Amino acid sequence: MELAWVERLRGEREMELLGDDAAVWGGKVFTVDMLTEGVDFILSEVATELIGRKSLAVNLSDIAAMGAVPEAALVAVSLPRGDSDKNLLLAEKLYSGMKPLLEKYNVKIIGGDTNCWDDGLVISVTVIGSVLPQGVFKRAGAKANDAILVTGELGGSILSHQFIFEPRIFEAIYLNQNHSIHAGIDISDGLAIDLHRVAKESNLGTIIYADAIPISRDASICTKKSGRLPIEHALSDGEDFELILAVPEDEATKLIESQPLLDRFGCRLSKIGKFTTDKNIRIVNKNGTIEKLEPLGFQHG
Amino acid sequence: MELAWVERLRGEREMELLGDDAAVWGGKVFTVDMLTEGVDFILSEVATELIGRKSLAVNLSDIAAMGAVPEAALVAVSLPRGDSDKNLLLAEKLYSGMKPLLEKYNVKIIGGDTNCWDDGLVISVTVIGSVLPQGVFKRAGAKANDAILVTGELGGSILSHQFIFEPRIFEAIYLNQNHSIHAGIDISDGLAIDLHRVAKESNLGTIIYADAIPISRDASICTKKSGRLPIEHALSDGEDFELILAVPEDEATKLIESQPLLDRFGCRLSKIGKFTTDKNIRIVNKNGTIEKLEPLGFQHG
Repeated sequence: MELAWVERLRGEREMELLGDDAAVWGGKVFTVDMLTEGVDFILSEVATELIGRKSLAVNLSDIAAMGAVPEAALVAVSLPRGDSDKNLLLAEKLYSGMKPLLEKYNVKIIGGDTNCWDDGLVISVTVIGSVLPQGVFKRAGAKANDAILVTGELGGSILSHQFIFEPRIFEAIYLNQNHSIHAGIDISDGLAIDLHRVAKESNLGTIIYADAIPISRDASICTKKSGRLPIEHALSDGEDFELILAVPEDEATKLIESQPLLDRFGCRLSKIGKFTTDKNIRIVNKNGTIEKLEPLGFQHG
Repeated sequence: MELAWVERLRGEREMELLGDDAAVWGGKVFTVDMLTEGVDFILSEVATELIGRKSLAVNLSDIAAMGAVPEAALVAVSLPRGDSDKNLLLAEKLYSGMKPLLEKYNVKIIGGDTNCWDDGLVISVTVIGSVLPQGVFKRAGAKANDAILVTGELGGSILSHQFIFEPRIFEAIYLNQNHSIHAGIDISDGLAIDLHRVAKESNLGTIIYADAIPISRDASICTKKSGRLPIEHALSDGEDFELILAVPEDEATKLIESQPLLDRFGCRLSKIGKFTTDKNIRIVNKNGTIEKLEPLGFQHG
């Protein structure tokens, strides 16, 4: 793990992202994400509050992917140099965007660093969480024949979901405390590529069913501009921030039947396929043909 | 503390930096510093390894200012977009600059985030440390009549010290374990302004002696260009990353006589004055006149 972030860069070039969504160390989980202007947001096109919200929410989603409980955050920002009143307003808007999430999930900002410079807005948030007695979800924990469950609906996050999504914190805690979950990841880069990551880390393959993938209304709206099918958006759009979970078959059946997250948190679980000993990553199309599923999605670097 | 980083921005406008160098939370200390191109370094003027080194070292200095033990780090970077081979090389150089410090102080990189974008290089490092049984040095802990001690020599860090300084980790741990230290801060913005901060937080004043301030050779070299006196550089130059400590009078006398850090770590302690109930911050000049010491140094935002 020592070389993690250099390895990560190297890995991203080869589409082989290593490691979990957060690091487990000393009984806690730690994650950091840096958002930058022009890549993660266009300052002139989105409310500053939503940028602040997103900078925290993406980290909370990583904590959810581990089935852990967020507790504290450190926030470092570099603001585009302007007059100091304008900067103070910018910082305050970033903070007010975070505030509802801080309150909802009982997370405390314990420290930070505020800078000004001549380039674009940068926000780097570190979140610390605690590990439940049940342990954490690891990418490498999936077992052959485990069902593949996903939360919510996928695709088209570019329309708004990427800024207003609810990190699946409560859902993950509930599932970790009440059910046997073998592996987890959040969909930050796309269903297909993130599924590849779990399969690779667990040394397994998958077979998923196009018919079973929950497609968001926004994915369908996106088709009008993109000319691509809704299912293509659901498979390859990034920033859904839904969870992919590996769950033992019988446990998965119970979960799909009882939908315990629906009443509690308004979140539906869908079974989209299963993990296989055969290491191919495959999809069964609507017409019944089986084909290789490429690691579609956002590729870093 | 909830509003820490917005308060910090607001505070910096009013030159009233609040809080300690690191946050104490859950039995650990946490600090984050974000370094940006053009502010903290000029990419074309300094070896990339030294930028990586500095991004970690400034955080280690904050941990030292608390008298704590660094343990782990998370590193988030945004690299100026280039070809991926160039970016990998840049990331590797940043990492090789950190490596000697990671090894020397037994700090593990537990996670990170690597991004590319169209603007300048940004590195944000979060460091986590453990609190010794003796507790931490707080800015607010100075008592009236405590001696003011500083490590090393001050001023002129712009010539090279700002990139090659050794964070006073071992010195701080030794002092915390073997002596009574009431308060601490590292000199990141300048002796005068950082002394103001300790005095303000402790609700005290100070009297320091110009004659007693350890002035670095680099401060003297700087005078040639700046036309300012070496003592002015020692008082106002930022990025010395030496420690200012509040130490009970008798303990301070022992420390100055025995210089326990000199043999062990090559670090001399100097007594430069004392804290006073009178809340003025004053300096006794070489000619014996006493005057108000302005909060000279780097002011953020």
